[in-house]
Amino acid sequence: MKQTKLLMPTLREVPADAEVKSHQYLLKAGYIRPVSAGAFAYLPLAKRVLNKVEAIVREEMEAINANEMLVPEILPAELWQRSGRYQTYGQDLYKFKNRQDRDFILGPTHEETFTELIGGDIKSYKKLPLLVYQIQSKFRDEGRPRFGLLRTREFLMKDAYSFTADQEGLDSIFDQMEDAYRRIFDRIGLDYRVIVGDAGAMGGSDSKEFSAPAAAGEDTIVYSEGSDYAANLEMAQDFYERVDRSSEAQEAMTTIDTPNVKTIEALSALLDRPASELVKTIVLAGPEGQLIAVVTTGDFDVNTVKVQNFLGLSEVDLADETVVKEKLGASFGSLGPVALPEDIQLLVDERAADLVNFAAGANEDGKHHLNVNWGRDVALEEDQVGDFRTVKEGEMAVDGKGKLAFTKGIEIGHIFKLGTKYSAALGAQVLDQNGRAVDMIMGCYGIGLSRLLAAVSEQKADEKGLVWPAAIAPYDVHIVPINLKDDDQAAVVADLEKAVAEAHFDSLVDDRKERAGVKFADADLIGLPIRITVGKKAGEGIVEVVLRESGESFEMQASEVVDHLADWLQK
Amino acid sequence: MKQTKLLMPTLREVPADAEVKSHQYLLKAGYIRPVSAGAFAYLPLAKRVLNKVEAIVREEMEAINANEMLVPEILPAELWQRSGRYQTYGQDLYKFKNRQDRDFILGPTHEETFTELIGGDIKSYKKLPLLVYQIQSKFRDEGRPRFGLLRTREFLMKDAYSFTADQEGLDSIFDQMEDAYRRIFDRIGLDYRVIVGDAGAMGGSDSKEFSAPAAAGEDTIVYSEGSDYAANLEMAQDFYERVDRSSEAQEAMTTIDTPNVKTIEALSALLDRPASELVKTIVLAGPEGQLIAVVTTGDFDVNTVKVQNFLGLSEVDLADETVVKEKLGASFGSLGPVALPEDIQLLVDERAADLVNFAAGANEDGKHHLNVNWGRDVALEEDQVGDFRTVKEGEMAVDGKGKLAFTKGIEIGHIFKLGTKYSAALGAQVLDQNGRAVDMIMGCYGIGLSRLLAAVSEQKADEKGLVWPAAIAPYDVHIVPINLKDDDQAAVVADLEKAVAEAHFDSLVDDRKERAGVKFADADLIGLPIRITVGKKAGEGIVEVVLRESGESFEMQASEVVDHLADWLQK
Repeated sequence: MKQTKLLMPTLREVPADAEVKSHQYLLKAGYIRPVSAGAFAYLPLAKRVLNKVEAIVREEMEAINANEMLVPEILPAELWQRSGRYQTYGQDLYKFKNRQDRDFILGPTHEETFTELIGGDIKSYKKLPLLVYQIQSKFRDEGRPRFGLLRTREFLMKDAYSFTADQEGLDSIFDQMEDAYRRIFDRIGLDYRVIVGDAGAMGGSDSKEFSAPAAAGEDTIVYSEGSDYAANLEMAQDFYERVDRSSEAQEAMTTIDTPNVKTIEALSALLDRPASELVKTIVLAGPEGQLIAVVTTGDFDVNTVKVQNFLGLSEVDLADETVVKEKLGASFGSLGPVALPEDIQLLVDERAADLVNFAAGANEDGKHHLNVNWGRDVALEEDQVGDFRTVKEGEMAVDGKGKLAFTKGIEIGHIFKLGTKYSAALGAQVLDQNGRAVDMIMGCYGIGLSRLLAAVSEQKADEKGLVWPAAIAPYDVHIVPINLKDDDQAAVVADLEKAVAEAHFDSLVDDRKERAGVKFADADLIGLPIRITVGKKAGEGIVEVVLRESGESFEMQASEVVDHLADWLQK
Repeated sequence: MKQTKLLMPTLREVPADAEVKSHQYLLKAGYIRPVSAGAFAYLPLAKRVLNKVEAIVREEMEAINANEMLVPEILPAELWQRSGRYQTYGQDLYKFKNRQDRDFILGPTHEETFTELIGGDIKSYKKLPLLVYQIQSKFRDEGRPRFGLLRTREFLMKDAYSFTADQEGLDSIFDQMEDAYRRIFDRIGLDYRVIVGDAGAMGGSDSKEFSAPAAAGEDTIVYSEGSDYAANLEMAQDFYERVDRSSEAQEAMTTIDTPNVKTIEALSALLDRPASELVKTIVLAGPEGQLIAVVTTGDFDVNTVKVQNFLGLSEVDLADETVVKEKLGASFGSLGPVALPEDIQLLVDERAADLVNFAAGANEDGKHHLNVNWGRDVALEEDQVGDFRTVKEGEMAVDGKGKLAFTKGIEIGHIFKLGTKYSAALGAQVLDQNGRAVDMIMGCYGIGLSRLLAAVSEQKADEKGLVWPAAIAPYDVHIVPINLKDDDQAAVVADLEKAVAEAHFDSLVDDRKERAGVKFADADLIGLPIRITVGKKAGEGIVEVVLRESGESFEMQASEVVDHLADWLQK
């Protein structure tokens, strides 16, 4: 492709509202343009990246016998009313009416659509398992679209859905899908981690998230420095072995004045004891307003998602301080587990449950108890004890293999065991081996394709611009003549272009009448893997090769370039 | 691909609301399913056809240096308010509000989007010409979606837009695009005609339509049996050479009573003269209510689109009979050109203008004039004479090469010279060679991709089911074993599948436990080009080959099949 035929409008200035690196460079290098807030046009270079990403996704989906389909983007509201999501999905759902005043939505995801389609045509377990997917624009009316392609109102996704007659079938497809996703992200050349996602009340094993570490990420990923373990901060677990300290002497509980001691740090200083030997008591409220007191050691924060999943509640939040004060008679900072009102449920983190002779708030402002002991001073059953803490960097990972570290991550994929939620709601049943009608068991699997462009850019771009991995670069080779009016240069360029095409690579030729400096800066900005500069030595058949990612550069005979392309692109 | 892994739900019964062949078979063969009225899911077989169509389109677009892009489907209403189409597009436009109560539309087409994008980034004629395209779902809130994929609310289109600094640039891209479209439809294997479309008041040369002849088509195409000439019925022209009859004797005009003579047929019978020697006068009304009397010979109908384009009016319709009676004093059937009121504009079709001593209504009910002559009885200037008639089958085509025939057609593509309509409205200007700001000159070009599936099905399907041209068939080869439990058959199937793949063709293997009759019927229904039946003679390495389109069948050694695939697919 000749650059003069290509719409590649690079900018000298970055728009002020572009906060993150990927947004800035994708605008500056002429890959994307906003059409409205959170809805972008993909210009030719970006579309070529998307096409290459899509081709990789299709290959890996086909390899596990996934069926490509395409369903409508406009969906009858009735379908979502039957699943209940029309009411619960919230403001992110685009709703509209057609000319006959019927209600429709723009699909943000398609569990209902595929459940209805498959349920309508598949009536026997013999036709299962079935795995379907599509590549399509999705719509979400984000309250505050931002960070370029990272949070948009219209985005490109690969969404897949599996239908099986039994749990083993789902487990098998789930594993195949995880492997396929790993191959996709490996081939794209992205650094990613597979993390335990928050699957809500259904338990952690039902969902895995693929996250690309990047400073612009909106999620905190916790990973082990010594193993593959990784999880979202909400789900991450550290290693802790319970200790039996029942034989230790229990000293007499006393109460002391602690005016102005509102924090663990202050209490720790006052008593000259480490925070890990003190406890912190936080009162949470469930969806019905029920109160839950959670006790952790002073060096950890309570993790509301873990509490929520442990109790199987839909929502858990910090209780209102006035409610707490009325109920317990004390403010935040002076709360403790001793003599809690009976209708407050007590949960104790395992680290706190193993303390003896510990200090705790006395449920009276300005007072703390010393030498509190479980059993003697506070009744505690083992089923009230669990992991209710948020992990910290530097703790040992739950697998005992290495310390936990934190990083910011971008969610690029998510695989999820749905079970029968949608098939039950929409009546998608098959007859099983015994002739009984059973709800199909479903999984759903998504990759954010347009978001991948941002994730790759966040990870790879350097101070000069974008850096594309070879597998998804818009073109493999950027041929940059200094002066196309020079016959030697023109001839070398023509030969190179032809040889590259014959070797099944693609090239972009900068045939613009621009100064060399402008051409080089634009080449660095758009970030193709290999730049071949054709300049003064063209007469001797010599060109300069520059590898974008490493910055490595060297001269060689133009005729030999094509033999090395595969190697350079492999790097 | 193994058929047991493929979602291919064939039906035994065709839904009653499927009126046309393509709709019936695409449902029955498991290619499509409705999700709501006019919005279909493309099942795996259909998606494979679409993917092959898209690949051909991309290749031909790339060959003329078109840039692939992808713009949002949700568009701010403001963009369409500025072009004026938000107000004029009518009920077909899907409108909705986002959570901030801002107005949006779902794009039915993207002239505005691309004009705004290109206008924002391109400021000099030096960056032109530029040709961009995309493949994307479009939305039109059809009042009455019908005929399966032929008239839908959500459909897949390839839409392209060209931007040039001068008319020559547009003309050149328009021609390249026509050639590219011809190559696309040729490669797909579709029978089509390039016809002169109605380009409204801008003149016929600005638009060409690609139409696929088919009984289910909603348009009437007129074509020459002896040349490439083709046009929409509204635009079609027949051959007519003007005759100078000024030397012929003009007889005296008389008026006769013609009670109950309301039609040309009745007048022709009464006077014993052919309809071609009588005239018919029709009164039309323009958008402001202005009246236009159009005279044709009695054997032709008046063509309102030609009148409209001739006068440069936005709309022309048959005038209301009560208005006409009030103004002329006579009802339809007794109208004529003699003594018309001055404020009625007279237009005369060239065939009628060449008559002498002809009969015409007397503008008095139950009376006709005989021996009317232009000039003597009715003033007539040459600029009132033109082609205002609708052609008839059997007339000579305008190029004089063959007779006109009519057929029904499906519009599959349309190319259009837009000029500066959108660039002027949206301020998309470039500096020209003289440094003056000029509006960019635009063209737009569309192919209805999902509709192509219906057009091909309408043309090719036979009484057994669908028949796909090789270039876009979901799979090239259908391998149908009679009994996979037979080791010989299983071995031949495995070898065949491998050999087909190695030769870069794709195959579908019917590994279902079904009777041979069911398998053959399904194979005919889904319509892959080549069926290879592996049955009893598998032990001798012999298989049966059936070519779907011709029905030809023969036995041969399985090992030789792959050598013939390319030939068979070429047929």
